[in-house]
Amino acid sequence: MTLFDAGLSGSATAGPGPAQVKLVVAYDGTDFSGFAAQPGQPGVRTVGGVLAHAIGKVLRHEVRLACAGRTDAGVHAWGQVASFLSEPGLDPWRLQAAVTSMLGPEVVIRSAELAPSTFDARHSAQWRTYRYTILNRRAPDPFRDRFTWWVPDPLDLRALRLGADPFVGEHDFASFCRKGPEGSSTTRRVLESRWVDEGDGVLRYEIRGNAFCWQLVRSIVGTLVEVGLGKRRPGDMMAILRAGDRDAAGQLAPPRGLCLWEVGY
Amino acid sequence: MTLFDAGLSGSATAGPGPAQVKLVVAYDGTDFSGFAAQPGQPGVRTVGGVLAHAIGKVLRHEVRLACAGRTDAGVHAWGQVASFLSEPGLDPWRLQAAVTSMLGPEVVIRSAELAPSTFDARHSAQWRTYRYTILNRRAPDPFRDRFTWWVPDPLDLRALRLGADPFVGEHDFASFCRKGPEGSSTTRRVLESRWVDEGDGVLRYEIRGNAFCWQLVRSIVGTLVEVGLGKRRPGDMMAILRAGDRDAAGQLAPPRGLCLWEVGY
Repeated sequence: MTLFDAGLSGSATAGPGPAQVKLVVAYDGTDFSGFAAQPGQPGVRTVGGVLAHAIGKVLRHEVRLACAGRTDAGVHAWGQVASFLSEPGLDPWRLQAAVTSMLGPEVVIRSAELAPSTFDARHSAQWRTYRYTILNRRAPDPFRDRFTWWVPDPLDLRALRLGADPFVGEHDFASFCRKGPEGSSTTRRVLESRWVDEGDGVLRYEIRGNAFCWQLVRSIVGTLVEVGLGKRRPGDMMAILRAGDRDAAGQLAPPRGLCLWEVGY
Repeated sequence: MTLFDAGLSGSATAGPGPAQVKLVVAYDGTDFSGFAAQPGQPGVRTVGGVLAHAIGKVLRHEVRLACAGRTDAGVHAWGQVASFLSEPGLDPWRLQAAVTSMLGPEVVIRSAELAPSTFDARHSAQWRTYRYTILNRRAPDPFRDRFTWWVPDPLDLRALRLGADPFVGEHDFASFCRKGPEGSSTTRRVLESRWVDEGDGVLRYEIRGNAFCWQLVRSIVGTLVEVGLGKRRPGDMMAILRAGDRDAAGQLAPPRGLCLWEVGY
């Protein structure tokens, strides 16, 4: 029987037909070329590639993963969500344990559950939250290095916060995105954009939005850091947004500080 | 002029003579064969080896490092202290910045200062504090993995605490140490031995003592974890101490969870 022979069950319990499986996945993205599997390039190691391979081994059939956020090379996740259509009779708990024992601790399935047949990790998502962590101390920290961007010069937190405010709302983010396919929209709705001072020089930027175009968070953070260093004014953010020109914004913050934190459905 | 030509200055400021330099060093020990330089084995990468090499390059003379704790392969430090005799005119701040830019973020000099000529990182130390961190959750955590021991089965914190109490005081720790040179003492004075519940499944064991013999903390933690899992009783600890036999104690906890936290002078 192929995956699509039987009718979809529509129920979140293990019925007789195939079902969507929803996974919440955490990973250390340091040694991966991003999430999205790149089937044409066998030497490229991606989170989605190793995950689909491990699930396929456990279930003994190939799976096609959908994901909530196609994180870039070196970007991490605590709450990435992936989904796939499974053949009947799947035990989510067993799948979770088997895959985590194969891929953990680098890639860990934090939860696995059966979802309605209409569920799709990407298209059903209502919002995504990303966190970007900066270590703002004179000296780097060996324990935080993999997951933070070390900025040794002092950042003005008040300026960072003033600079973060204008992003809330619906905007065309063309100035902060790498161009997608011709004609694709760069308009997104941002629900939250704020800095959290964790103390001891650890500053966390948190942004929640309906969706994110390519490199959006990293270019916002890179530009805000220029504001925090006094190289730009917080008031410039609105003008950069309006310019609709990628060259108007600042540098790209490095991937190591970025983490896909949570996805809402 | 050799290092030892001039008289020692005895002052903590940059006088005309050579002076002891005190460094506080943090490192991610994952990819090192411990702290102690192994001069006879050129292929072995140690923290002390790379540190002495970098300092030598900056100061343009060889240095001999003393250290407060000879951490094992894979063990980390936040507050390791190292010292060496420097030629006159050293600028500690410049040394710190130059060495950290060469070795950071894997090895970071957190502070560098001139110390009295009698100072020695090892012999002047009054106490050392080690921390051992356990992740006690069903699933591993990609963000904590390098610096914690993942124990998936539930640990009884009350039993861990009862088991930790008897270590305080002066004891012969022969049951918990790998044998040192013939005739060397395994008696040590422990000032503090306690568990801190950091929440979210993170349990931290903290032990402060005048000195530690080889593998002492890891064999205490390995044995306490057997207590926490119900395989031994907290009351067994005293009997194990008294046995004076390495086979009486439990498994060795893995090095990844251990960190030399602070040294007192």
